Amino acid sequence: MEVTRENFKTLLPTIKADIDEAEFFAIDGEFTGLTINGIAITPFDTPAEYYKKLKDGAMDFLFFQFGLAAFKFDEAAKKYNHKAYNFYLFPRPDLRTKKVADSRFLCQTSCIDFLAEYLLDFNKVFKQGISYLNSPDEKKALDLLEERKENMLNSEKETEDEITVPSDLELCVENACSQVEDFIKSEAEEKEIILLKNNSFLKKLVYQQVSKRFSEDGIELITINKALIARKNYSKEQKEKDILEKFEAEKKEIQDVVGFTLVIRQLAQSGKLIIGHNFLIDLCHILNQFFSPLPEEYNEFKSMLHDIFPRLLDTKYMCHSEPFTNLLPTSTLAQLLPVICKSPFKLPEVGCIDKDYGYSTSSNKNHEAGFDAYITGLLFITFAHYLGTKFTKESDDVPLTKMNVLNRFINRLHLMKVNDTYIDICGNDPDVSRDHVFYVTFPSIWRFKQIADLFRPVGNIVVSWIDETSAWVALSKPDMAPDMVYVDTSEYDDVTILSYEQRRRTMRRYQSTSSSATPQLLFSPDTSSALKKRKREVQSTAACSNIAATAAGRRRSRSSGRESFSRRSFETIPEEAEEVDSPIRKKRLIDDCEKTSKCDKKMEFDENDAWD
Amino acid sequence: MEVTRENFKTLLPTIKADIDEAEFFAIDGEFTGLTINGIAITPFDTPAEYYKKLKDGAMDFLFFQFGLAAFKFDEAAKKYNHKAYNFYLFPRPDLRTKKVADSRFLCQTSCIDFLAEYLLDFNKVFKQGISYLNSPDEKKALDLLEERKENMLNSEKETEDEITVPSDLELCVENACSQVEDFIKSEAEEKEIILLKNNSFLKKLVYQQVSKRFSEDGIELITINKALIARKNYSKEQKEKDILEKFEAEKKEIQDVVGFTLVIRQLAQSGKLIIGHNFLIDLCHILNQFFSPLPEEYNEFKSMLHDIFPRLLDTKYMCHSEPFTNLLPTSTLAQLLPVICKSPFKLPEVGCIDKDYGYSTSSNKNHEAGFDAYITGLLFITFAHYLGTKFTKESDDVPLTKMNVLNRFINRLHLMKVNDTYIDICGNDPDVSRDHVFYVTFPSIWRFKQIADLFRPVGNIVVSWIDETSAWVALSKPDMAPDMVYVDTSEYDDVTILSYEQRRRTMRRYQSTSSSATPQLLFSPDTSSALKKRKREVQSTAACSNIAATAAGRRRSRSSGRESFSRRSFETIPEEAEEVDSPIRKKRLIDDCEKTSKCDKKMEFDENDAWD
Repeated sequence: MEVTRENFKTLLPTIKADIDEAEFFAIDGEFTGLTINGIAITPFDTPAEYYKKLKDGAMDFLFFQFGLAAFKFDEAAKKYNHKAYNFYLFPRPDLRTKKVADSRFLCQTSCIDFLAEYLLDFNKVFKQGISYLNSPDEKKALDLLEERKENMLNSEKETEDEITVPSDLELCVENACSQVEDFIKSEAEEKEIILLKNNSFLKKLVYQQVSKRFSEDGIELITINKALIARKNYSKEQKEKDILEKFEAEKKEIQDVVGFTLVIRQLAQSGKLIIGHNFLIDLCHILNQFFSPLPEEYNEFKSMLHDIFPRLLDTKYMCHSEPFTNLLPTSTLAQLLPVICKSPFKLPEVGCIDKDYGYSTSSNKNHEAGFDAYITGLLFITFAHYLGTKFTKESDDVPLTKMNVLNRFINRLHLMKVNDTYIDICGNDPDVSRDHVFYVTFPSIWRFKQIADLFRPVGNIVVSWIDETSAWVALSKPDMAPDMVYVDTSEYDDVTILSYEQRRRTMRRYQSTSSSATPQLLFSPDTSSALKKRKREVQSTAACSNIAATAAGRRRSRSSGRESFSRRSFETIPEEAEEVDSPIRKKRLIDDCEKTSKCDKKMEFDENDAWD
Repeated sequence: MEVTRENFKTLLPTIKADIDEAEFFAIDGEFTGLTINGIAITPFDTPAEYYKKLKDGAMDFLFFQFGLAAFKFDEAAKKYNHKAYNFYLFPRPDLRTKKVADSRFLCQTSCIDFLAEYLLDFNKVFKQGISYLNSPDEKKALDLLEERKENMLNSEKETEDEITVPSDLELCVENACSQVEDFIKSEAEEKEIILLKNNSFLKKLVYQQVSKRFSEDGIELITINKALIARKNYSKEQKEKDILEKFEAEKKEIQDVVGFTLVIRQLAQSGKLIIGHNFLIDLCHILNQFFSPLPEEYNEFKSMLHDIFPRLLDTKYMCHSEPFTNLLPTSTLAQLLPVICKSPFKLPEVGCIDKDYGYSTSSNKNHEAGFDAYITGLLFITFAHYLGTKFTKESDDVPLTKMNVLNRFINRLHLMKVNDTYIDICGNDPDVSRDHVFYVTFPSIWRFKQIADLFRPVGNIVVSWIDETSAWVALSKPDMAPDMVYVDTSEYDDVTILSYEQRRRTMRRYQSTSSSATPQLLFSPDTSSALKKRKREVQSTAACSNIAATAAGRRRSRSSGRESFSRRSFETIPEEAEEVDSPIRKKRLIDDCEKTSKCDKKMEFDENDAWD
């Protein structure tokens, strides 16, 4: 069911009832971008670094679609049914909240283009999106309202200096005054007249003149919805009552702006199992947009997350864990559905609670948040079923969410692009050995070849570029790490190798002495700094090739022109960068190998950039 | 005529011809936002400060619609005709330029909401927008292409270390090799086969194995559009020819991405008069998006602007200059059309060159860039006509753009919200006296009243708040400035008054010693810092009212609770902030006074926020 601001208020009670009745939920968010420039994730980030990069680099994108699939077990039919909602969101600033929340949001051009290809209706987002407000902003709006109310209730006449009416406004002011005069004399029933609707300067002038001349005649002035209104025979009690009524109405307006946040709050309050696929980024956005800004500290984030959502499950984490990691050729959501329909998996029948509120597996609405949430729920059911029938004797009568065999997946979050660790929300993150990983700095003209030459004594390597002069280098055979003593940098002036631990210590020292790093190059293209560097590098090789050659070290065999070209433009030999030699990655390669013909633009984006 | 990427290439020759034939142009841009938080313009900014604020605070919004109205004099009918285009723009990153230009852009929620109200079709923007690329990005893309071409033409076999094929990828690699084997033996006519379409790691493995095993058999490998292709009987000449062809095709693709930029370049090259309304922000965006990033220095900006567009005219500057400033009740574009249809103005008949490419005054498409450009052109024609008939003897035979009486308006840009100066593109900006303006700092609990009390010796004042503890204060009667000696701050510990010149000197010293200021609060709501301050202030007044009272100074007559409320929530007495007592402002007040009943949500936005 599509939910926009047109039907949200009507549907809210139903949604709340569905949340009350469901056994578990799957959710999914869609955003206007994924990463800002200059904040790239590397395969050897720690979970805390990873969190900081998301917090600094992804939270300014717009959360524009939220999918909610609620699942409920049908005891009679012994199967799960679902009800799905696809919410369009837009944090529309309202008159009452504009000063609190006229936010700016970021869009990543390639993401917008990708979404446009999937026929996302942006008009529906911007025109019909349901508004939302996080808790601090809601509190600010309510505080402002409360203060204004107190102010109006307690107002006494100010003995402020009178502003002289400029000659060209005299006519306007006099007009207003004679309107009031007529109003006082009038015997008609009307108890108020509108004097002015806008322009604070003129309203101020009229306010001063009318107060001065007519307060003895029982005229009270009040501003409602920016209009200056004159009232007569206006008792103090009536005025107070009007003020209170007006502010109650405004409070309701703020509640309308809080809008979709109410759904998320109720989800959180349910304490039930909530499932997502590649869940971390959704959860960061959810906390940030609907609760409060993400904390600076990673551990604070973990406890905030656990306080709000006590039971979470990430199906992408499952995909990358035993036994699934060896059974799945991909962990991309859109590609998993056909996989779980085939042996060794068995997708149980999952029905609709109400046909207007459901999807089927053939709906083919990839990247619609509601559909993705539904598919995520199916993944969970299939995986849980597989574990239940294969590994335990937990019968079908135990609700899936209560199965002990799931415990080792609960509250653990996958880290996209990082393959050897994860976030353990309730405990310490796993202590992984990165003894085979090294932080290397080198001259900017170095390419894979030079690094591979340097590391020849320890065999094959995988290089993850950080920038033009530094990279993480992982040994393909971790047990070769002790042989690093044979890797000799003494011949180079400007090559350094640090162990992973040494590098981490340096970073920690750096972070504790410097202020929190701010993203650079916020809006310039991804590679602009790299390109600038490259350009300088091209120049230095051309104009001062001797110096460049010296800088590159004596062992470099050739310093031909072509070595000065960016590795990014190296087409005949595919890039070695960013390839992490993990089992799942290889699986995906095989999978792709089998279906190369299906490759199209959408696939490419999916594979490279999408977070699902 | 609506122009999207569907019809752009077809229309481009017509557009170019129209630019060649026109006498002058009016243009208009639409953006996804106006100001980022924390960078507010005050009425006493210098033109250089104003420029810096625009550069730092407005350039990250998306330029999504460009209106071009070309005007041409019909000698026979003695009237102007026009042809108008409304271009939808979106800087879509292409395969060839994605690495150069996958930009991020900012949206201001209230602006998006405003545009949605005006029924802007965002889908058309994102799906059908014509791409564009500024000159440095175009150069980068072409450089990258050139380097890749050279690289491919000069490629020799790399003697790179062979990567051991991981066991689980062996099958894939062997498959590819036997494909090549079959291909070599095959007697079919085909000269190439596609081996792999994606996944660089696998392509690298296959590349290595196939090169190793089959290079003796005349097999050449080439990557085209990311696909790894094997070719046989492939002569060096043929390979070179193919590479050159391929890169010519890619060059054309980049040209397509440059897209709309070609129109702007031709407009610039024409050297003809180009007219805009409230032109500065459009011009900043135009330079930034279609030429190159705005220079840091204000004077560099002026010369860059003049180099690119030698003849500019800002109709908003005309509105604020004699004789128009006294004849117009408003300078907001949407409100000017009815005004110029009435005496003392006379809107000459302006026809269409082609009915598919034109608007009429009744089109009522406010905020569509093409329509706004058309109206801007009508304004210019009407104003020029008024000047021509009223003040000079220049006959109808002189083309409007050649009239000497227009010279004093050429290359001068209005500064929105700043009323006493302007930008003189080709010369020094006017030297305005701000001897009656003072920079005042005060305790955060001060309101208008306390400041007015302080300035009582010099009469009425206008306060322009900078933040909670500082403001510009202008004397309503400038000639009272010498009496400032009677304004006595000695009674207060924490009140300072600087003359406008003193403050400017301090700022210049500050700027020359500190690095260039970066905007703060980029994505938090406008008033968040103010609100935080206010909150603290409320607490201090409540909890330590004595201290607060002392801080506020002995002369403050009352320290009642209500004084601690934010001036922003002060409703019964309209805000005094931000009112600048200029003639045009007052005129607009009268105008509004006459039509208060028309006030609606759109009007409010327009009056307060719109830059037209």
